[in-house]
Amino acid sequence: MTEFSMTELINRKCEGEALTSDELHWIIESYTARAIPDYQLSALLMTIRHLGFDPEELAAWTDAMLHSGDVLDLSNVPLPKVDKHSTGGVGDKVSIPLAPLVAACGVAVPMMSGRGLGHTGGTLDKLESIPGFQTEIDPTRFVRQLVDLGVVLAGQSETLVPADRRIYALRDASGTVPSIPLISSSIMSKKLAEDLNGLVLDIKVGSGAFMKDIPSATVLAETMVGLGRRYATPVMAILTNMDQPLGFEVGNANEIVESIDVLKGAGPGDVVELVMRFGEDMLMIGGVAADRSTARILLESARADGSALDKFREVIIAQGGDPSVIDDPSLLPRAPDTYEVVAATDGFVDRCDALAIGTAGVRLGAGRQTKDEDVDPGVGITIHAKIGDAVVEGEPLATVRYRDRSRLDAAIPLLDAAWEITEGPPDPYLLILGEVE
Amino acid sequence: MTEFSMTELINRKCEGEALTSDELHWIIESYTARAIPDYQLSALLMTIRHLGFDPEELAAWTDAMLHSGDVLDLSNVPLPKVDKHSTGGVGDKVSIPLAPLVAACGVAVPMMSGRGLGHTGGTLDKLESIPGFQTEIDPTRFVRQLVDLGVVLAGQSETLVPADRRIYALRDASGTVPSIPLISSSIMSKKLAEDLNGLVLDIKVGSGAFMKDIPSATVLAETMVGLGRRYATPVMAILTNMDQPLGFEVGNANEIVESIDVLKGAGPGDVVELVMRFGEDMLMIGGVAADRSTARILLESARADGSALDKFREVIIAQGGDPSVIDDPSLLPRAPDTYEVVAATDGFVDRCDALAIGTAGVRLGAGRQTKDEDVDPGVGITIHAKIGDAVVEGEPLATVRYRDRSRLDAAIPLLDAAWEITEGPPDPYLLILGEVE
Repeated sequence: MTEFSMTELINRKCEGEALTSDELHWIIESYTARAIPDYQLSALLMTIRHLGFDPEELAAWTDAMLHSGDVLDLSNVPLPKVDKHSTGGVGDKVSIPLAPLVAACGVAVPMMSGRGLGHTGGTLDKLESIPGFQTEIDPTRFVRQLVDLGVVLAGQSETLVPADRRIYALRDASGTVPSIPLISSSIMSKKLAEDLNGLVLDIKVGSGAFMKDIPSATVLAETMVGLGRRYATPVMAILTNMDQPLGFEVGNANEIVESIDVLKGAGPGDVVELVMRFGEDMLMIGGVAADRSTARILLESARADGSALDKFREVIIAQGGDPSVIDDPSLLPRAPDTYEVVAATDGFVDRCDALAIGTAGVRLGAGRQTKDEDVDPGVGITIHAKIGDAVVEGEPLATVRYRDRSRLDAAIPLLDAAWEITEGPPDPYLLILGEVE
Repeated sequence: MTEFSMTELINRKCEGEALTSDELHWIIESYTARAIPDYQLSALLMTIRHLGFDPEELAAWTDAMLHSGDVLDLSNVPLPKVDKHSTGGVGDKVSIPLAPLVAACGVAVPMMSGRGLGHTGGTLDKLESIPGFQTEIDPTRFVRQLVDLGVVLAGQSETLVPADRRIYALRDASGTVPSIPLISSSIMSKKLAEDLNGLVLDIKVGSGAFMKDIPSATVLAETMVGLGRRYATPVMAILTNMDQPLGFEVGNANEIVESIDVLKGAGPGDVVELVMRFGEDMLMIGGVAADRSTARILLESARADGSALDKFREVIIAQGGDPSVIDDPSLLPRAPDTYEVVAATDGFVDRCDALAIGTAGVRLGAGRQTKDEDVDPGVGITIHAKIGDAVVEGEPLATVRYRDRSRLDAAIPLLDAAWEITEGPPDPYLLILGEVE
């Protein structure tokens, strides 16, 4: 392979020149092989944060990431394979009921998820609150379970896209996370390495999301849909509101309880709405439903007849967990003490801030303040009043389940500021803000 | 001192917020103390390359650099102290005759210079071609020599502005050299640490300079003059043309020969013009001449009566060198072989490219291709035809003095392309392009 000078490449990129595919492949390969020092890559990443990538550069960068390690071979899986990815939110447990529900309808879901990041929760952390549940699944077992059950809920394999693992850690430590091309290539390289027939994306927008406004979320969605197109992988992106948490539960074990509720045919309206909406798209992309109403009927019946819940039970068993939590949620970890956040006045909830509540959750121990911290599966926040709800002074807005008084004390000021109550009812809260195909 | 989160500071700077003086001081102090990793600082430096600094940030950054180590105390020096700095060019030996000349006129010159960088030569490398000449002078000896002789030609002290040493090395390796605020603060922090009464700056513009055009050179000049004003240090900046090399000699020993010629009352017109111009400004800033014409008379007489040359002899002796090179330049190192670059056609020289000739000099060994290389003091290029000169086919344009045939072979293509000959005479070559006070 040709050798390049990294400082020359950085300077050319800084001066507005596009780098070639060969140059970008060389950068990813050399960095993965530890032949480029961190301080050079972080300088380049920062230039990308400021100047972006043109479509050819983005495609080459993503391609180099995708081929930095193994790519799954799912040709033995007899079903269509469709995954779902969320850019991360607060109370966002949608993937947990969605994956077994869609699998119960005949579309395989080879789901590789992440851990909590900043104030957002992580699917893996939530699943691991089920006693015994394993999320480290080697590729052989991953394929076997996907053939057997049609669904796996695993962590990212070490051997897939190793470049992203190293680059993501560097981005996190060097202020180069908020870059649409870097976010897109990170997500899409990992998803394309899963050998999918299609992908649905939940692009979160708002206070509790990384994308704070619809225009930037739309650009991110279009960028990822465009990358999918280059690989002939249908990608559908939906922009959803993350100004307030999704559902009533924020935490790990308590989000599992709410997920099980959804599979049992109950659950909060907003969570159910997104589960059904993404489920419909996944069944249509997977070709098992020709249109949205057919897809809806399939999903409703899998929820009604217990087959979706059975599928989740099978996944828990296959991945080493205790399936009796489905029938007895009290078997899940639960912090011993509770604290109530109460309304200061009568009125209507105008704000129920996802960022503040998510950050309070992290302070309680539901997420990580440093990388190597363990999460506490039993702490969390149960929300009683969301945007538009009428409240009276002294009525509980949320119940906090905590283990450590000093951690609660750190969370209280955030929770006190998270709700805003106004005299009249606020504008309706729109959950789905747009879509990009 | 308050602790900050470096990633938070990087993100705020990226989003267009100005960092505070406390934050910038913390960054410089923490990086110098190795408490901030290289990859975080390079990411911040890259953001500064892209977004710049506002005047308050620039002042705080420079101040933090300035106070990262010792500051010279020259209060024992009875004369006014004025230094000169050049942003670097090809054949730029102006400092070498200028410093003793100005000192002979009663203004002390505490000159701290650098080594060759890229295609540009370095005053220290040139001086060290004088057998025995030492440029590492500790602060005590520096002050003593300045009191005794009124002039020191030394390298940057290790104890002054240590932050710049580390940051410069990182900038060089991370593509963050070309940034006006970073260049300005690097130069000005080192000069302000010299306890000066004034400073003259030679801002090179053109093919062989880091600043390629007059507008960017003007911004750089204004930035540094503005920083001087904050410290009540008069700074005068002159923009000079670096499209072609200065003088006829490019290399180390051969630039010393040309410098001695200037002190003897001879030397090339362009070198003499800049020596006199900067000398005038230094005498005026130092207060020993009220106006330019008086300054000129003082300088002319110091050149004519031998006192400037005597001053250089005293400096060579004080710094351990062999002063007999002044009377017998053949005592300087000299590579054994020569090669001639000849004119391909009759006509007038329209281009005599400083970048090409400087790079050819590096390839011959007059500069460094990697940081730890030694320079060869005896190789170099003697130019016979400069812009505007009439030449005939086959006539030598330059004589190359080389030691190693393979290095010559690497230099020849650059030299062949360095001259352009046209039929008619070109526009006159302007040496001085502007000034900023």
